[in-house]
Amino acid sequence: MLSIHSDEHFMREAMKEAQKAFDKGEIPVGAVVVSNNQIIARAYNQTELLSDVTAHAEMLAITAAANHLGGKYLIDCTLYITLEPCVMCAGALTWSQIGSVIYAAKDVKRGYSSISGLNMHPKTIVKQGPFSEESEKLLLEFFRKLRK
Amino acid sequence: MLSIHSDEHFMREAMKEAQKAFDKGEIPVGAVVVSNNQIIARAYNQTELLSDVTAHAEMLAITAAANHLGGKYLIDCTLYITLEPCVMCAGALTWSQIGSVIYAAKDVKRGYSSISGLNMHPKTIVKQGPFSEESEKLLLEFFRKLRK
Repeated sequence: MLSIHSDEHFMREAMKEAQKAFDKGEIPVGAVVVSNNQIIARAYNQTELLSDVTAHAEMLAITAAANHLGGKYLIDCTLYITLEPCVMCAGALTWSQIGSVIYAAKDVKRGYSSISGLNMHPKTIVKQGPFSEESEKLLLEFFRKLRK
Repeated sequence: MLSIHSDEHFMREAMKEAQKAFDKGEIPVGAVVVSNNQIIARAYNQTELLSDVTAHAEMLAITAAANHLGGKYLIDCTLYITLEPCVMCAGALTWSQIGSVIYAAKDVKRGYSSISGLNMHPKTIVKQGPFSEESEKLLLEFFRKLRK
């Protein structure tokens, strides 16, 4: 039986990835990529572990999803991400021609939408989804701890 | 004896990387990262080989340079790249806080500077350097072959 999952279900899974990042001392952002109502890739931010500014959750998830599909385009996929993508990740998502991007918390400072005129691929549907408050809370907790 | 190399010298090395990409059927873009007048990372576009839209020369070079330095910031480094960086790569270079970016050919369509309001890190010096014509010629030759 195919059970059709909701945005809540998949964003909860992305939040689990963000929590893994938190537990490892990484800025807590998590992602899952969904194709045909199934998770084909999961990732969390690993910039500290890998000492690599490019290792955002989205970037790792794009690479993992392409690897899973055996092709570099993610046309029929949806990315669930706990924080609005930055410029780098929005650029990568554009190249991937991904079908949809659903993010939880808005990133007023570093989110790609803070650059007027910067859009993802014209065929990509981008929207804010559930768990915005939970994601913000986790991020705030992380930075509060960091400053102690 | 420390020999001080010129932009020409390093961009010629980036062009060698672009030629490697060309020879492997990849869009011919090459990069080197220089620190203390020495090349610490070399890379060429591998999006086809890796089946990964994130595998631009700049992204691979940033990761390799950070790996070499043992830290994720490239403050005292210069990236020589044969084509103006795209939005994704400009975003990654911003996160890296790289000292300088010198590119050969301008990318009118896909270059980050086609998005008004999109800039790299305020401390990063960005300029067009030598080998612009050679890089354009190699790219045109690649796309001409591809269309045959």
